[in-house]
Amino acid sequence: MIASAALLIREHGARATSIDDVLAHSGAPRGSVYHHFPGGREELVEEATAFAGEFVDARLRAAREGAEPLAAFDEFLAGYRRDLIASGFRVGCPVAAVAIEAREDGDPITDRAGSVFEGWTTGLAAAFADAGMAKQRAAELAEFAIAAAEGAIVISRARRSIEPFDRARAELTALLRSETSEP
Amino acid sequence: MIASAALLIREHGARATSIDDVLAHSGAPRGSVYHHFPGGREELVEEATAFAGEFVDARLRAAREGAEPLAAFDEFLAGYRRDLIASGFRVGCPVAAVAIEAREDGDPITDRAGSVFEGWTTGLAAAFADAGMAKQRAAELAEFAIAAAEGAIVISRARRSIEPFDRARAELTALLRSETSEP
Repeated sequence: MIASAALLIREHGARATSIDDVLAHSGAPRGSVYHHFPGGREELVEEATAFAGEFVDARLRAAREGAEPLAAFDEFLAGYRRDLIASGFRVGCPVAAVAIEAREDGDPITDRAGSVFEGWTTGLAAAFADAGMAKQRAAELAEFAIAAAEGAIVISRARRSIEPFDRARAELTALLRSETSEP
Repeated sequence: MIASAALLIREHGARATSIDDVLAHSGAPRGSVYHHFPGGREELVEEATAFAGEFVDARLRAAREGAEPLAAFDEFLAGYRRDLIASGFRVGCPVAAVAIEAREDGDPITDRAGSVFEGWTTGLAAAFADAGMAKQRAAELAEFAIAAAEGAIVISRARRSIEPFDRARAELTALLRSETSEP
């Protein structure tokens, strides 16, 4: 149910994803919803946001174990690129979809989206530091790279073209290379 | 009603904005909805997307008439920055909110969001060309700058902090300056 919720949210948005949609997508029995998610739809959306965060975190960690430190960044982008193309530009990032809908102050869903973005920034910053960047600069560029990638996903969806995404990837790769080749 | 719809969409998302919400926000009489928008909610969302596009277009044009060509880019960012802070990070970009919710293929709403992003890219590219950038490069950097700004708005909302937005602004400004100072 959590994976189904994440898949539906990245396509339709969080508010447009109902418990009924998640049950239909996952095939889970209705009786299991309030057993597993006593907080109902809100709890499911929060868990789906965390799930999407961990999914990308795991990819970042795996890529960091590879030979080339900047590969972690390319891995971060590659998954989104595949999904954009395979879906005909219908699906984006579930965490961005959650972040784009305002909720009451202190709502745990928005906080969770914020934590996920922070976690990705930390993971990417570690990879950039591995590549020889100073720690502070690695953190700054990780934050910028995630913002630019998330925005490029939005533009590519609206324009139904991979070109804006590939442009962001090219600019970010050039920027990262220029800052890691320095002593 | 169009302005109210744009304001509500940038805060809650397009699917979460109902005709009732727009009537309550605008104070318009219910009877006027289908008179002005025979296509109902969908038509209103499309018009609100176009309205947001023209609003920013007009700011870009006004900024280009100023003395400093790159001021157009700063003006593009400044409006979003003000809104993020004034709203306590509750509001973002209505066009991104529209783009993030998938619809049926050929739906005019997503197409309208794509056209708005293209229009902004064209406007910014003209400003960058005014600043001495080659046309092709100006178009590439305009596309990248809009993507990065849109993504930074999303991250700043989730993290309830202007820092990610200001980071993107600093990186983009440095990049644009480095590419316009070249011969």
